[in-house]
Amino acid sequence: MINHLIAFGVFGMVAMSQAGEKVLSIDLISAKKNINVGNWSLSSAQVDMKSPLSWSVRKYNLHGGKQEGVEIVEINNGVLSILIIPTRGMNVLKVVGPDITLGWDSPVKEVVHPKWVDLNYNGGLGWLDSFNEWMVRGGMEYSGHPGDDNGRLMTLHGRVAHCPASEVTVTIEPTNPPTIKVSGLVQERWFKGAQFALNTTLSTVVGSSSFQFDDTITNEASDEKEFQILYHANFAKELLEKDSKLHGTIKSVQAFNDDAAKNLNNFDTYTAPAKVLSGENVFQIIPRSDENGQAHFLLRNAKADKAVSFSYKTDTLPYFSMWKNPDSRENGYVTGLEPGNSFPANRSHERKQGRIQTLKGGESAHYKLKYTLLSGKTAVAKGISSIEKLNQGHEVKLIEDVEHP
Amino acid sequence: MINHLIAFGVFGMVAMSQAGEKVLSIDLISAKKNINVGNWSLSSAQVDMKSPLSWSVRKYNLHGGKQEGVEIVEINNGVLSILIIPTRGMNVLKVVGPDITLGWDSPVKEVVHPKWVDLNYNGGLGWLDSFNEWMVRGGMEYSGHPGDDNGRLMTLHGRVAHCPASEVTVTIEPTNPPTIKVSGLVQERWFKGAQFALNTTLSTVVGSSSFQFDDTITNEASDEKEFQILYHANFAKELLEKDSKLHGTIKSVQAFNDDAAKNLNNFDTYTAPAKVLSGENVFQIIPRSDENGQAHFLLRNAKADKAVSFSYKTDTLPYFSMWKNPDSRENGYVTGLEPGNSFPANRSHERKQGRIQTLKGGESAHYKLKYTLLSGKTAVAKGISSIEKLNQGHEVKLIEDVEHP
Amino acid sequence: MINHLIAFGVFGMVAMSQAGEKVLSIDLISAKKNINVGNWSLSSAQVDMKSPLSWSVRKYNLHGGKQEGVEIVEINNGVLSILIIPTRGMNVLKVVGPDITLGWDSPVKEVVHPKWVDLNYNGGLGWLDSFNEWMVRGGMEYSGHPGDDNGRLMTLHGRVAHCPASEVTVTIEPTNPPTIKVSGLVQERWFKGAQFALNTTLSTVVGSSSFQFDDTITNEASDEKEFQILYHANFAKELLEKDSKLHGTIKSVQAFNDDAAKNLNNFDTYTAPAKVLSGENVFQIIPRSDENGQAHFLLRNAKADKAVSFSYKTDTLPYFSMWKNPDSRENGYVTGLEPGNSFPANRSHERKQGRIQTLKGGESAHYKLKYTLLSGKTAVAKGISSIEKLNQGHEVKLIEDVEHP
Repeated sequence: MINHLIAFGVFGMVAMSQAGEKVLSIDLISAKKNINVGNWSLSSAQVDMKSPLSWSVRKYNLHGGKQEGVEIVEINNGVLSILIIPTRGMNVLKVVGPDITLGWDSPVKEVVHPKWVDLNYNGGLGWLDSFNEWMVRGGMEYSGHPGDDNGRLMTLHGRVAHCPASEVTVTIEPTNPPTIKVSGLVQERWFKGAQFALNTTLSTVVGSSSFQFDDTITNEASDEKEFQILYHANFAKELLEKDSKLHGTIKSVQAFNDDAAKNLNNFDTYTAPAKVLSGENVFQIIPRSDENGQAHFLLRNAKADKAVSFSYKTDTLPYFSMWKNPDSRENGYVTGLEPGNSFPANRSHERKQGRIQTLKGGESAHYKLKYTLLSGKTAVAKGISSIEKLNQGHEVKLIEDVEHP
Repeated sequence: MINHLIAFGVFGMVAMSQAGEKVLSIDLISAKKNINVGNWSLSSAQVDMKSPLSWSVRKYNLHGGKQEGVEIVEINNGVLSILIIPTRGMNVLKVVGPDITLGWDSPVKEVVHPKWVDLNYNGGLGWLDSFNEWMVRGGMEYSGHPGDDNGRLMTLHGRVAHCPASEVTVTIEPTNPPTIKVSGLVQERWFKGAQFALNTTLSTVVGSSSFQFDDTITNEASDEKEFQILYHANFAKELLEKDSKLHGTIKSVQAFNDDAAKNLNNFDTYTAPAKVLSGENVFQIIPRSDENGQAHFLLRNAKADKAVSFSYKTDTLPYFSMWKNPDSRENGYVTGLEPGNSFPANRSHERKQGRIQTLKGGESAHYKLKYTLLSGKTAVAKGISSIEKLNQGHEVKLIEDVEHP
Repeated sequence: MINHLIAFGVFGMVAMSQAGEKVLSIDLISAKKNINVGNWSLSSAQVDMKSPLSWSVRKYNLHGGKQEGVEIVEINNGVLSILIIPTRGMNVLKVVGPDITLGWDSPVKEVVHPKWVDLNYNGGLGWLDSFNEWMVRGGMEYSGHPGDDNGRLMTLHGRVAHCPASEVTVTIEPTNPPTIKVSGLVQERWFKGAQFALNTTLSTVVGSSSFQFDDTITNEASDEKEFQILYHANFAKELLEKDSKLHGTIKSVQAFNDDAAKNLNNFDTYTAPAKVLSGENVFQIIPRSDENGQAHFLLRNAKADKAVSFSYKTDTLPYFSMWKNPDSRENGYVTGLEPGNSFPANRSHERKQGRIQTLKGGESAHYKLKYTLLSGKTAVAKGISSIEKLNQGHEVKLIEDVEHP
């Protein structure tokens, strides 16, 4: 009851939805209002809203080693637990369902606070010191591989993943069942340089096996700026093994590196964790969109009884990188399935290839990505079938050349 | 009452002033005593001291994004609010008067904790990731532009702005009206290198529109060391617009860069915020001092009804850099008026020009700078007139050459 | 009493020792269990265990400047105070005995939180920004001097000293007198790179003038990795002065640098703090081990009435670096006596000399080092005598050449 009063009295903001019902909105972190609620929780029991299942949202701190002080916002929608990391650019640590987890086992065991990470370290590879999320965004000034671009060292995958959220808000909407939203503002700013604001909302309906990202990147400078975004989503756990397979509405596939070129014909199937370590395979994929402009992908396990499917609009995310890391389990067996507005080579190479977008002063770009966990042979078969239907009459074009950035 | 007891009982230290009255001195932060008082405040109501106006000093933490955990000490002298940032080398975020604010609107919106800043980033430009204060000191090993000096990368404007204060003390002196002082110790130290201690005191009298810095830099090593200091004070808000003007006791002006050379004749007047972005203009100014060794400057708005004036001794700060940044408001329209013991080129260039000072082992240098906010045409006219009087019979020498470091 | 309940009830874990008595084990920090106890203490008065002397273990935070938030675990065994720094890789700040302190007076005055240190700074010398411990480990990917190795900048003495402990446990064993142990897990990890775990235990018996390190380094990757470890122990205080001397079971001594080569014959004696600063002297020493595989060293003051002795097994630590820093007291007069699995040159040089060890996937290396404070002429003479006995019939080989890495 005390929790209830605090949540509503001090930080809560109640607005009326279009249907006349109450929308609950609570600031957890705000640089503008100078707020950080610290440890905090809200559950269905505290809220006067119909719901078929119990749900909760919690904010708590991590302790020990390099994760001391890292903040987590955890949504439990009754089916899925979704762990968002405001301290690390609103990245998603993992999504835990009843029998499928989105995520992987990185050699990096802690949720590393960005203060421990020097992106410049090791020739711009410092990002690897903290890499262990299910979903980590690359961007926003640059999102690719390290190296020089016009006299500046582009550090691996950019800086947005190591920028803490300035504003974090939880919203509960009185849909039936209720909708839980966690929104964050992540900023990449420097004087004489970037002024990018990422407004991201992760939302899920109570009882659903789906969730989605609604993201907006705005250039708040007055002049036009190049920008990059890469949704670096990483899968292993129950979904990755020998004979796991990627299904998708794919127009063409090109090897990014020589190791990938050798395996171009089998780009969509996976091998077991490696005993003898070998090079990673990266493929440059151009998705084909349906009549609504959506690309569709599905990653399934060998038995085809567990899968994740995801869809997004290709107009703002025309490129898709597939990263196969045929490593041992100890060293980080994983695959990255990565929608982006470019491929992951250095920005200088992507610019030469005409794959760098810009935003004018004040202009925004929008992204919507929806992910669904599929459990059981029937659900997986249905997901694959809907992709195959879209693929009827289309061949995947395999491009032999390697761009060699 | 509880506050009163805490303030005096636990942290307060009461000494007798020369006049026999009580001087109140309170440690807010101390590495030596292992103290940090956390959130704290003291106001005139708690202190038995005559005062014509209410005043207060507060210490509080910022929250959200990159300012989470940054500490602010805010003086309110009844007229001015002065926000000092112990976490950032005792820099001053802003000074807010009734109708004038010293400060500017940087694209960097938060008071960035130094733990987020990698000075080495982007070829030594990492300093720009946090640059948004009214007053930020450059120094103490080096204070200029990035680049190599004897095999070491000098990062932009040095490290002192990103060193947190080791000791912070508030002192209330029973002058009539009382004097409020906030003192800090900021250290730049490394084994085999710098051992510089900056002892800085910002003081203001209750009810005054003035405040001053009393700073001492000491070389605590046993051997002689080069050192640099730059008072990088940045103005915009009500003071900077088309036809704003700088008045000063100026001996000579030289363009620092080619863009400045084109505008040498109009160095002292300002243009409106830019629509089409162009290069910054930096001028190297040699001030002329009065019979007390003081240089005097005044920056006023177009209507000449709002101004800031400032004075300081030129024996320790012989150089004055004027930085005009003709940028859009969104990108950071601002001017820097920067007394220093060198100009802002790289240390290697300043050394060649004979502008690098040294301190012997144990030796100190002292700085005193006084700033006054001037409101209304009369006050501004009087300020300008006193400078013009000192300028009578003197011409400003305009030096056409650019040094080209 | 409340403390008692908290310590035992919430965090305590009581197990039975082999003799049937209770072993007390308390987690202070745990990333796995998401615990940090904050300020904490345990003393003999709270524990039902026989002890001839009062003892205590405390955990507390430091405040002010760059040490704000640094955590200290302080053991008091009734004779020695041992200050361990979990925030800095379980390094030991100092060991304070009745008349001898292990430690030194660095120009770096605070216990700097690693978040302030950029190891890449100044060509890889950033480590010097925080160097002031008695014992700081170099390692674990590399432990030597800065410079390139295969395209990667090796930063001075590696990263382990700036990695915070993930797990910290205090154990009290019911020996008679009791044994106090502080254990920590320190990890150096990055995706595609190091996966080293250092499990370190510092233990001491109540009332003893001795303590020891039991350390294990494990390669948790699946593939073989090079690794380095250097026990960089630094002495000054009562032990270092003109005519201080190092005694040891030494097979050979070689100058590491030209300055050392000039003083090869007097490698084992020390000069007074310098007035005119000169270069440091480093010697590469190969220890000779006794029948138990142990090397023995002793550093004593001029009067030979104060000393520290230490012993360790040479099979895992075959090299010993002696670093004489003939600096002024202000600049950091100190000597480093540093067992290691290589000498302190850059890893590329050490590899060429065949001095780089590796660990296979899952393999571990173990280290045990015991230090004893010796007070009074008798104790010091006895310590020297036992070393001299081991040296009978052996000459120290002086190698004139300098390797010149």
